[in-house]
Amino acid sequence: MPDTDTRKRRGGGRAGNAARRGGAVIEQMPWKPPINRDRPVEPLTDEGVLAIHNGAMEILEDIGIAILNPEALEIFRQAGCSIDGNVVRCGRDFIMEMVGKAPSEFTLTPRNPERQITVGGRTLLFGNVSSPPNYWDMEIGRKVPGTREMCCNLLKLTQYFNCIHFAGGYPVEPVDIHASIRHLDVVYDKLTLTDKVMHAYSLGRERVEDVMEMVRIAGGLTHEEFDATPRMYTNINSTSPLKHDYPMLDGWMRMARRGQGCVVTPFTLAGAMAPVTMAGAVAQSLAEGLIAIALAQYINPGCPCVIGTFTSNVDMKSGAPAFGTPEYMRATQMTGQLARFYKLPMRSSGVCAANVPDGQAMWETSNSLWAAVQSGTHMVYHAAGWLEGGLIASPEKFIMDCEILQQIQRYMDPEITATGPDEIALDAIRAVGNDGHFFGIQHTQDRYTTAFYQPFLSDWKNYEGWEAAGGIWTPERAHHMFKSIIADFQPPPMDEAIREELAAFVERRKREGGAPTDF
Amino acid sequence: MPDTDTRKRRGGGRAGNAARRGGAVIEQMPWKPPINRDRPVEPLTDEGVLAIHNGAMEILEDIGIAILNPEALEIFRQAGCSIDGNVVRCGRDFIMEMVGKAPSEFTLTPRNPERQITVGGRTLLFGNVSSPPNYWDMEIGRKVPGTREMCCNLLKLTQYFNCIHFAGGYPVEPVDIHASIRHLDVVYDKLTLTDKVMHAYSLGRERVEDVMEMVRIAGGLTHEEFDATPRMYTNINSTSPLKHDYPMLDGWMRMARRGQGCVVTPFTLAGAMAPVTMAGAVAQSLAEGLIAIALAQYINPGCPCVIGTFTSNVDMKSGAPAFGTPEYMRATQMTGQLARFYKLPMRSSGVCAANVPDGQAMWETSNSLWAAVQSGTHMVYHAAGWLEGGLIASPEKFIMDCEILQQIQRYMDPEITATGPDEIALDAIRAVGNDGHFFGIQHTQDRYTTAFYQPFLSDWKNYEGWEAAGGIWTPERAHHMFKSIIADFQPPPMDEAIREELAAFVERRKREGGAPTDF
Repeated sequence: MPDTDTRKRRGGGRAGNAARRGGAVIEQMPWKPPINRDRPVEPLTDEGVLAIHNGAMEILEDIGIAILNPEALEIFRQAGCSIDGNVVRCGRDFIMEMVGKAPSEFTLTPRNPERQITVGGRTLLFGNVSSPPNYWDMEIGRKVPGTREMCCNLLKLTQYFNCIHFAGGYPVEPVDIHASIRHLDVVYDKLTLTDKVMHAYSLGRERVEDVMEMVRIAGGLTHEEFDATPRMYTNINSTSPLKHDYPMLDGWMRMARRGQGCVVTPFTLAGAMAPVTMAGAVAQSLAEGLIAIALAQYINPGCPCVIGTFTSNVDMKSGAPAFGTPEYMRATQMTGQLARFYKLPMRSSGVCAANVPDGQAMWETSNSLWAAVQSGTHMVYHAAGWLEGGLIASPEKFIMDCEILQQIQRYMDPEITATGPDEIALDAIRAVGNDGHFFGIQHTQDRYTTAFYQPFLSDWKNYEGWEAAGGIWTPERAHHMFKSIIADFQPPPMDEAIREELAAFVERRKREGGAPTDF
Repeated sequence: MPDTDTRKRRGGGRAGNAARRGGAVIEQMPWKPPINRDRPVEPLTDEGVLAIHNGAMEILEDIGIAILNPEALEIFRQAGCSIDGNVVRCGRDFIMEMVGKAPSEFTLTPRNPERQITVGGRTLLFGNVSSPPNYWDMEIGRKVPGTREMCCNLLKLTQYFNCIHFAGGYPVEPVDIHASIRHLDVVYDKLTLTDKVMHAYSLGRERVEDVMEMVRIAGGLTHEEFDATPRMYTNINSTSPLKHDYPMLDGWMRMARRGQGCVVTPFTLAGAMAPVTMAGAVAQSLAEGLIAIALAQYINPGCPCVIGTFTSNVDMKSGAPAFGTPEYMRATQMTGQLARFYKLPMRSSGVCAANVPDGQAMWETSNSLWAAVQSGTHMVYHAAGWLEGGLIASPEKFIMDCEILQQIQRYMDPEITATGPDEIALDAIRAVGNDGHFFGIQHTQDRYTTAFYQPFLSDWKNYEGWEAAGGIWTPERAHHMFKSIIADFQPPPMDEAIREELAAFVERRKREGGAPTDF
């Protein structure tokens, strides 16, 4: 772990402790968000970029977006946009002026400042699966509704793996907790089981305000300190086509006012909620995203925003959503080109349609994760644990995905492609000559412990060795690992006074009835 | 299948018939080798490219390559290279002059001219797994030695799938056929079960000459017609480090003299047969490859050559080879940069270390296939069917890999990223407005049958639908498909007179004793 020393020098922090504890079950790579060194894959010409931009602008100017939140509607009216019923039409000058105020890069700082992340630039960040209503694992062997225990276990994986850089929404919906108080219990679990960047659902005033307050308490922050720099984020979805609903925009505006991270991700399935042609689906997605970003920038110029993409296609035989497809990959790359055009950080996802953590799950997820890399994505949502188009969370899939994420982290290490004299290694080649091998020589001995990626889940034994070890297929190996990680899990440290303050807050808000459930 | 009409117009050829027959079991994409539209991923700076080039040149000039073939040694002596025992040292001027004679693009034309392929340029070609001694399928459930029947079944898959563009070596070694006559039986099987580009192992004079003769007979060609344009190819491996053995070079020179395709692929596992540092392993691999290409060009200037890479790393805990790793991906990309520097077509592979067709198999294979795309590879060996680092061939893995290959084919379709007015689709977006959906509208109806990739193996049903259909995981679905394809398989047409001539040739050569087995 090359940066252990640095981390120790930075103050022997909690992340360091967590990483060292991680060694107990598996040897994983250190916390080190990858820097994406690859030039993005850009399928669009400059004219293609402009054609999609012009499409998005014409949607905003001529067709308009329905804004089902009166407060937001009033803000657009003040800003000089045209309002027709609840449909807002904005000139491109207004949109581009507002979008121009958004930073191209910002930080998010959770309660453990060593887990601070930079959104934008070349940094590639991964978050856990968010929001599946159901759960599947090898032991249960079928799809079941999520519970608080399942949710906690997935949060433990979120904390455990150094390649997961931020916490998403609930990794599975704990439907055994009443919806009115679910956010209180789960965010308490999230804040005590993890020390990574927090997310708030924008589902009504109470939820957003409660989560912001809990993140503030967990960080030991004053209100001023909380507002001074982004501590957390929300992710909203438009109701495609061309509509933003009330609670999402309510949360969006609350987060924007307090300068917290605002990610907008239209769910534009080509052929269903968007045109069957990918350029049209991307243009529509951008229009839906940009109007929300314009709103945030009008409210609080310079507040941190991210443009998300979830553009994929449906199975035209059944209408079912498909993920990790060639069309998904290209749409993500195209959105990346437009995100750079707008100088906005970008979010995409690690997704698949598969129902179980098998080969299909991994080629679809690999496609989507490599598309994230190729597109220059900054935040990769659902990067670990997602199945069935987001309807199932699986701990085995989580762990399998983390093996891919670690490989991407290593793939971005410039050490692999260094070409100095030590790496060209002519002396070593000369010493070995036309016979012999490189196993024993000094050049190898000096480097062999760190020269190559070491997997924690991939089994590199030959068939006979693998058979002798039980002949265990990947998801079952992942299942055993899941059990061990959970059994061994130690939550990150938290001051007892802060934990008590959090618990008291949860208790009080529960007594008050939590949040309304009629959204 | 958009190009069906074109194919019919081109003469109702055999490829067209095969594709139509293919529809009986699965709906697959048409024969259409993808054009790689993506700018390569280039981890090396220009200085890095030169550093590796200089490393390769210094290996060739100062360290030298052992050439265990007296005829080749004599040719290098005539060419003015320095000979010390069996070690050849070549000046970079000689190497670069010879490499400069190799074409950057050429065709290979099999017995069915509609299966002609172009090697080089932007074309991306896929071949089947080659040379595993063992076989695994779901029904047998364990690793067993290959047989002629297994080999034939994998050849049927090679022919069946339109995304497989050339036949590699034996898809599994049929160890139930004596080694002296194995090439005769398997090449007879290959030529009668497939009509795609053929390969010859360079394992002694008799084998290479027999295969060339059989390919000539199968094509109904005179010797002059066979020599006039490349009809087939060989692939040789150096004996790393820094050595070429007798039989490989013998076959190499025979193929070069007759202007057939010559692919050289050093097997440089970093940390074992090459330096532990990837730049050194790549430089060594290039040196080993370039000297063979220089030999071919000296013998027959302009003969078609391909530089291959098989540079990967070992597991430093066990010494076992690892495939589809981050280091493998970068080495492949680095080799791609150097192949373009030398203006040579390039070969890489679809590889994994996994022992069974599970999640690990698919993330490792996805990594290697996307590295082929990213590196600008032209020929992808082992693109379907490979397990256990090449020691096992599996029909389920073959079919799973073909799903990825088809997705790459579709990914390269410029239709996905078109940005004309019909694709931006403002009229459709306006028509649907802020409510409703795109399922039923004309813009969707006009396109829905061809708008998106249609998988043949991926199951896009939701969990309940998948469960109702038996809850079948990917490899088992692939197994059922394998059985159906084999049961339904129709070999491509061949004139009876040609088949009889081939059979008579095989019979005669068997009577003569086949080929020696003491190599």
